[in-house]
Amino acid sequence: MKLIRFGKAGNEKPGIVTDSGKLLDCSAFGADWTAEFLGDPNRLEALKQWLAVNAASCPEIAPSERLGSPVPYPSKIMCVGLNYSLHAKESGMEVPKQPVLFMKATSALTGPFDPIKLPRNSKATDWEVELAIVIGKKASYVSEEDAMDHVFGYVLHNDVSERDFQLHHGGQWVKGKSCDTFAPLGPYLVSRDEIADPHQLRLWLKVNGETMQDSTTSDLVFNVPQLVSYISQYMSLLPGDIISTGTPAGVGMGLKPPRYLKAGDEVELGIDGLGVSRQRVEAP
Amino acid sequence: MKLIRFGKAGNEKPGIVTDSGKLLDCSAFGADWTAEFLGDPNRLEALKQWLAVNAASCPEIAPSERLGSPVPYPSKIMCVGLNYSLHAKESGMEVPKQPVLFMKATSALTGPFDPIKLPRNSKATDWEVELAIVIGKKASYVSEEDAMDHVFGYVLHNDVSERDFQLHHGGQWVKGKSCDTFAPLGPYLVSRDEIADPHQLRLWLKVNGETMQDSTTSDLVFNVPQLVSYISQYMSLLPGDIISTGTPAGVGMGLKPPRYLKAGDEVELGIDGLGVSRQRVEAP
Repeated sequence: MKLIRFGKAGNEKPGIVTDSGKLLDCSAFGADWTAEFLGDPNRLEALKQWLAVNAASCPEIAPSERLGSPVPYPSKIMCVGLNYSLHAKESGMEVPKQPVLFMKATSALTGPFDPIKLPRNSKATDWEVELAIVIGKKASYVSEEDAMDHVFGYVLHNDVSERDFQLHHGGQWVKGKSCDTFAPLGPYLVSRDEIADPHQLRLWLKVNGETMQDSTTSDLVFNVPQLVSYISQYMSLLPGDIISTGTPAGVGMGLKPPRYLKAGDEVELGIDGLGVSRQRVEAP
Repeated sequence: MKLIRFGKAGNEKPGIVTDSGKLLDCSAFGADWTAEFLGDPNRLEALKQWLAVNAASCPEIAPSERLGSPVPYPSKIMCVGLNYSLHAKESGMEVPKQPVLFMKATSALTGPFDPIKLPRNSKATDWEVELAIVIGKKASYVSEEDAMDHVFGYVLHNDVSERDFQLHHGGQWVKGKSCDTFAPLGPYLVSRDEIADPHQLRLWLKVNGETMQDSTTSDLVFNVPQLVSYISQYMSLLPGDIISTGTPAGVGMGLKPPRYLKAGDEVELGIDGLGVSRQRVEAP
């Protein structure tokens, strides 16, 4: 199942993408794709049964309609740093022996085609295509063997990062990761059953049509079950929580000389099976 | 106004503490103390008017009743590190030139008298009494002059921290800050009008009756309006969001030799006007 949310920011309604690519308004199903829905073990079966009867009467969503973040109000976005070895190298860092974790404020979430607004005083706003995991069942001290039971599905994430804020404003990385519009998510949340192997997905990102990142999740240092299990040793992961698994080589900071986003730039990114998103960069 | 939430974890109801110290069940008011309530500019006046008519018929809450976190489901807990100069010194760090920010997962929130559960493999679980700010109005790029308009009120917070996870497990501090039960909050959320000066409050913490921290918020390096304004330059602060303003000297890590919490210990803490909380430490 591919879940979307559409409509004005803060007022999105739930929908789905059909196998033939149609976008259907599923408001009449009676549930948004909240933690409560994502955490219900019968959710997908119930939605499928409802669609079998009601899909034909679901309004089709106009292509001009805005898409929002397909996951509303997660309790947290936990990000993994330096989780592709070539990206660690371009960042001048060692490949970590344990996953490097940092958080991104959920107030940064935005729709997959919404603009990225440069924050005031930004000098170095950068792109990061990432495979994000969405949790479907509370995870606390789970083993790697059991970890996949706690995964609802996957979603495309641009972990937009202001490098000057992140690295040169004192303290921890959160300052450069949490600016409003720094977490374009989607287009859709894909349930786990539709992705045969999350570790064999090509992921790529272009700026103004030029390919900057082009890699595969087979290069992840720590893979999906390892990350879910590892994080769950430190804290509970709740339904709807997002784990962004890290970015491959090719970020602006790693170029010589570095290159950063400026107003008018267009960022386009995609992951096999998870669709494509596109953001225009706007001045503060 | 002093706002509380009471009842079983995950199923709390709203209440208040009266001027005479009675705890009243305000479920009949029809609102929990969510972001929606905290962000409504007419919230307190409406609650006061309702209480003027209905307080006499509000059930009194039994003293045996559990208190929960007075703020449910904030979008984020933003913490400030090294914000008292003596604490920076005991941590072997410089007093920062800009506020040091880090995040704590909201899944760590727990009631003010709930136990602190030591995480598995904990070697160094430590205490930190802190004044926490609760946001009452969205704050984005606000000036220090306007910052107080965005503050709903204040609450007592124990920023429980596992120093080994925080400092020696690779990467950022979040691993040592976000364990379940590591954010006992309350007993009550006090609206801003009841605290004449948030920078003249004594704060203290005892372990098994022995005073470990005893300081005053007049020693904050960055004060309340400075922090709200500063953080709002990096991201939007939303109603219900919590800013924990940092801890004074006297944490276990700063002792020679260091001393950490063990199962059976009792931590008690308080801040002038914000009440007292107490947590028993439990084995994993």
